[in-house]
Amino acid sequence: MGLLENIQSPADLKKLPRQELPQLAVEIRRVIVDVVSQNGGHLASSLGAVELAIAIHYVFDTPEDKVIWDVGHQSYAHKLLTGRRQQFATLRQHGGLSGFTKRSESPFDPFTTGHSSTSISAALGMVCANRLQQKNNKVVAVIGDGSMTAGLAYEAMNQAGDLHKDLIVILNDNDMSIARNVGALSSLLSRTLSGQRLQTWRKDLGEFLKSVPKIGDNIYQWAKRSEESFKTFITPGMLFEAFNFDYFGPINGHNLAHLISILSNIKNLRDPVLLHVTTQKGKGYARAEENPVYFHGVGCFDVTTGASTAPSCPLPTFTQVFGETMVHLAEHDDRIVAVTAAMPEGTGLAAFAERFPERFFDVGIAEQHGVTFAAGMAAEGFRPVVAIYSTFLQRAYDQIIHDVCIENLPVVFAIDRGGLVGEDGPTHHGQFDLSFLRSLPNLVVMAPKDENELRRMLVTALRHDGPIAVRYPRGMAVGVPIDPNPAPIPIGKAEVLTEGDDMLIMAIGRMVPVAMAACEALKPLGIACTVVNGRFVKPLDSQCIVRLAERIPHILTLEDNALQGGFGSAVLELLNDHGVSPLNVQRLGLPDRFVEHGSPAILYAEYGLDVAGVVRAARQLMARVQPRPPVTVVARGN
Amino acid sequence: MGLLENIQSPADLKKLPRQELPQLAVEIRRVIVDVVSQNGGHLASSLGAVELAIAIHYVFDTPEDKVIWDVGHQSYAHKLLTGRRQQFATLRQHGGLSGFTKRSESPFDPFTTGHSSTSISAALGMVCANRLQQKNNKVVAVIGDGSMTAGLAYEAMNQAGDLHKDLIVILNDNDMSIARNVGALSSLLSRTLSGQRLQTWRKDLGEFLKSVPKIGDNIYQWAKRSEESFKTFITPGMLFEAFNFDYFGPINGHNLAHLISILSNIKNLRDPVLLHVTTQKGKGYARAEENPVYFHGVGCFDVTTGASTAPSCPLPTFTQVFGETMVHLAEHDDRIVAVTAAMPEGTGLAAFAERFPERFFDVGIAEQHGVTFAAGMAAEGFRPVVAIYSTFLQRAYDQIIHDVCIENLPVVFAIDRGGLVGEDGPTHHGQFDLSFLRSLPNLVVMAPKDENELRRMLVTALRHDGPIAVRYPRGMAVGVPIDPNPAPIPIGKAEVLTEGDDMLIMAIGRMVPVAMAACEALKPLGIACTVVNGRFVKPLDSQCIVRLAERIPHILTLEDNALQGGFGSAVLELLNDHGVSPLNVQRLGLPDRFVEHGSPAILYAEYGLDVAGVVRAARQLMARVQPRPPVTVVARGN
Repeated sequence: MGLLENIQSPADLKKLPRQELPQLAVEIRRVIVDVVSQNGGHLASSLGAVELAIAIHYVFDTPEDKVIWDVGHQSYAHKLLTGRRQQFATLRQHGGLSGFTKRSESPFDPFTTGHSSTSISAALGMVCANRLQQKNNKVVAVIGDGSMTAGLAYEAMNQAGDLHKDLIVILNDNDMSIARNVGALSSLLSRTLSGQRLQTWRKDLGEFLKSVPKIGDNIYQWAKRSEESFKTFITPGMLFEAFNFDYFGPINGHNLAHLISILSNIKNLRDPVLLHVTTQKGKGYARAEENPVYFHGVGCFDVTTGASTAPSCPLPTFTQVFGETMVHLAEHDDRIVAVTAAMPEGTGLAAFAERFPERFFDVGIAEQHGVTFAAGMAAEGFRPVVAIYSTFLQRAYDQIIHDVCIENLPVVFAIDRGGLVGEDGPTHHGQFDLSFLRSLPNLVVMAPKDENELRRMLVTALRHDGPIAVRYPRGMAVGVPIDPNPAPIPIGKAEVLTEGDDMLIMAIGRMVPVAMAACEALKPLGIACTVVNGRFVKPLDSQCIVRLAERIPHILTLEDNALQGGFGSAVLELLNDHGVSPLNVQRLGLPDRFVEHGSPAILYAEYGLDVAGVVRAARQLMARVQPRPPVTVVARGN
Repeated sequence: MGLLENIQSPADLKKLPRQELPQLAVEIRRVIVDVVSQNGGHLASSLGAVELAIAIHYVFDTPEDKVIWDVGHQSYAHKLLTGRRQQFATLRQHGGLSGFTKRSESPFDPFTTGHSSTSISAALGMVCANRLQQKNNKVVAVIGDGSMTAGLAYEAMNQAGDLHKDLIVILNDNDMSIARNVGALSSLLSRTLSGQRLQTWRKDLGEFLKSVPKIGDNIYQWAKRSEESFKTFITPGMLFEAFNFDYFGPINGHNLAHLISILSNIKNLRDPVLLHVTTQKGKGYARAEENPVYFHGVGCFDVTTGASTAPSCPLPTFTQVFGETMVHLAEHDDRIVAVTAAMPEGTGLAAFAERFPERFFDVGIAEQHGVTFAAGMAAEGFRPVVAIYSTFLQRAYDQIIHDVCIENLPVVFAIDRGGLVGEDGPTHHGQFDLSFLRSLPNLVVMAPKDENELRRMLVTALRHDGPIAVRYPRGMAVGVPIDPNPAPIPIGKAEVLTEGDDMLIMAIGRMVPVAMAACEALKPLGIACTVVNGRFVKPLDSQCIVRLAERIPHILTLEDNALQGGFGSAVLELLNDHGVSPLNVQRLGLPDRFVEHGSPAILYAEYGLDVAGVVRAARQLMARVQPRPPVTVVARGN
């Protein structure tokens, strides 16, 4: 560990002679593997970008020069080189370093990342800003080939080629996004064929000209002209040339000498430049090289064997139950097709893809297109299930509204990772979905209390003749028995789980078991609770909720979503519409802030959404609001 | 009008001999110009697509074959040919034909459109669906070159090239989106140069080979091989070839014979095909040909002169006031830059673009990129103002959250067309923005009651060190005096406009003048109102609102936004958080449905959001809820 420990900043890196850099890469990889094996994290991507990080900081003058790591999950080497070596062991832990780049964490992180494909847009904004400020610094976006499949990257390329600023885009091409990459772009990038064609053609031409030297200058001029005309078109970077980028590459992204040499040259160009670098995901750690999908985002593992050291999980995850149920249901219903945006494994659809390849559609990192594509299939009689994480579904908001809800098309949204996701932090929490979905007409929004209800809700969704969303959390399911033939749930019907006269707790999704546990804990304190599993955020079960709210003097609502506009807010609206006083209602949920990273247990406790927090809130509500006869006025019938 | 009146469906069209089709095009143009001159509408685009519509319906077997008109604003000829000729005079009128394509309007409209760039995604979904159903119909997406700049289109192309279904994309290239087109793609499309190069090269090669016939077969074979190798690369459609589309064109989109012939050929191909058609916006109506931007979306006009016949507008629009204020403020603040997504005229930024070309950024139809680009500039010290219509801002929801709000970057969102926009209907109403924005941490959300307050809010926004949105309606401003030096408004401070003890009306934005008028109308009925101009949807003025709500026995909230999660919902949350009974609150706003098209006056009256509706609601509330002493409990301090 001789070299790395002396690097406090890129200035120290620059003092190293070039021939020592490969050794530095070895040391960095060792630290990354060690820490990620303890903390979990994005291992494979970060291992693939070690030489890139070294070369970039060796050549550019960060933080004056801005480097934006797209997604940021490949930035661990960058963090180690920019003053965060000593905190690196806290990676992804509560209060520790973020697993992505973050403006507030370091001046070397000029932009906060987490979602894919933002880097070119942000970098272009920075170049434009810096040029208006008469600054001559450089701005570099490092983006993976997977991230290039998103429309956002294309939109940015389109403007960048037009503005013609000296933006540098480094395409980190490992032929993977999170999973194996898909799409025409991917096959284009691997078409190095084209480059070879140019070489062959040139050689042929040369030979040819030698063979007919006497035909004269005209032919020679024609040939030269032709070559000049064609060569911009026939590199593998034709796509980028089409966007007015100067294209370089592909070069080996693990060859430090080449990287440093080409970056030093590119640094002086005044045009938009795209440098195509090929890297290997997981590079330098054999286990990850062999299985880059598994080691993309990984939990703790044994460094020697690569085997998981996470406490073995006695229960399936919601994700797994979703995936298995999809296979089961699709066996009996030809209308079911599945759509994922580059996450067949993450969404649990890998088995479905295996079983029904012709009914499985991985659209790439393209949530917008995925939703509209599904709308097209729904319009033709299918029942597409679009499985997208809550946080990424934000990318498709307009498509949900415009292409699905307006025409009431039967698209099922399987929204995984609702609520807090834990260590990935604020860019990845599914904190807003209940709020942004429940204002949409025609859309039904559900959240299951356990894995069996998830199955029932899928059945419900597939029978419903309109848009419908089922939102469930990351992680382990509850462990209830699984009904082999799950029955549908009537749309808009809540479930009363237990009855008591002192307190009404209305909860949604993963908060339902918390409510039940709080109910148990309140019993010995003499507080008898009615617990309602809301099941539907939209439409609410107005009959059930109004009836109970009229009778029970204290009401808690409980959700793992923003308090602003969420489930509790919907309950307030409902009670207000029905003329029921909600004076005795307290809403529990996520506060009006972006929630930091950390384990879900820590975070839910911090925000009072664990059993202790609910018990505390219940007791405070009892103390504050005295029971009084419920007041009602004439209901308005809405 | 001999030909058109006999066409009830495409079957009738197919009976016409080809040589009569140009005459049909003349008749169709006449009807379109006549009706749009009366009703307003998207004239220039529809005039440009007349021959396309004729040729498509002549060649394909709609509705079995699916044709999706991207955006749908160029579909008037399509409507006339598909059984809607007799209703065509009702175009864009309340209860009449939609200005876009709409599934519920006709079986010939397989997908509902309005926003740009959805057609390839939806069409690809339909092809996949139809092939799974063993159907052999064709699916055609007709998309403009402007719409091609959106990432959604790119995402769809990327998957389409990969799946390799026989999707047909017709690129309707008029070198315009709504305004003059921007971006690298646009310059690529005009690079017909490349096609000519191929021709030249082929010719040269031919001549050359003739001149050296004796060199032997090898050379000939080499030359043929080379030509084959290169030709896919050097058409103007290299971009599309890169996506595995077979590229044809460019051909003249007003030449019916060519169109029909090439479509007939393409119809039989089994690969993804892109047909590049060049058309002229406004074709066939001289005024629109001269000024396609003005005639893109136009109000009523005199057919002979092209001059507007809309009642002359004595007042500026909110849009104009925004544009003028931007120029004024930017004169004194170098940090201000403006970003638009292909709508310099629509957003009122044309003057700013003229005055500060280097500080003006038109990113193309690319709302996602526009927001992240602005975030990049904000990160470097600028104060970008991103002007996007409410309905299109839905496209950038994730970017608002992830790239702006998480890091609290000072991006100003100027959200035009908040509330109902009128004749463009459900795809264009700005019905959800207050709901989807107010759940976002760090974001301030404002709405001005009049044009002077809009100016003040812009000043407020530019002084605020974080993300902030100002949302204002389409159309004429109120007509208040303009303060030449607008003063900022303290963040989160509402304004009490008039005081009365019987009823509290809290309104936001354009609903404030409605509230004031209702207040006047209620006076003679003996109902004295306090009217509060909320100004901020987030943060609410809790002090002011709680104090008044405790004192005044009846409360109305009033907004031109969805009731679900909107301003009134925020008021309910606030009162609940402060332990104030909202039992006497009635929320007025848009119901939980997509609002149809029609004039704003008709629509607001229909939904009870005009003065009469507010008066009615106020009287009903007075009758229903008897005044009682307000009840409060201990405030919780949140």
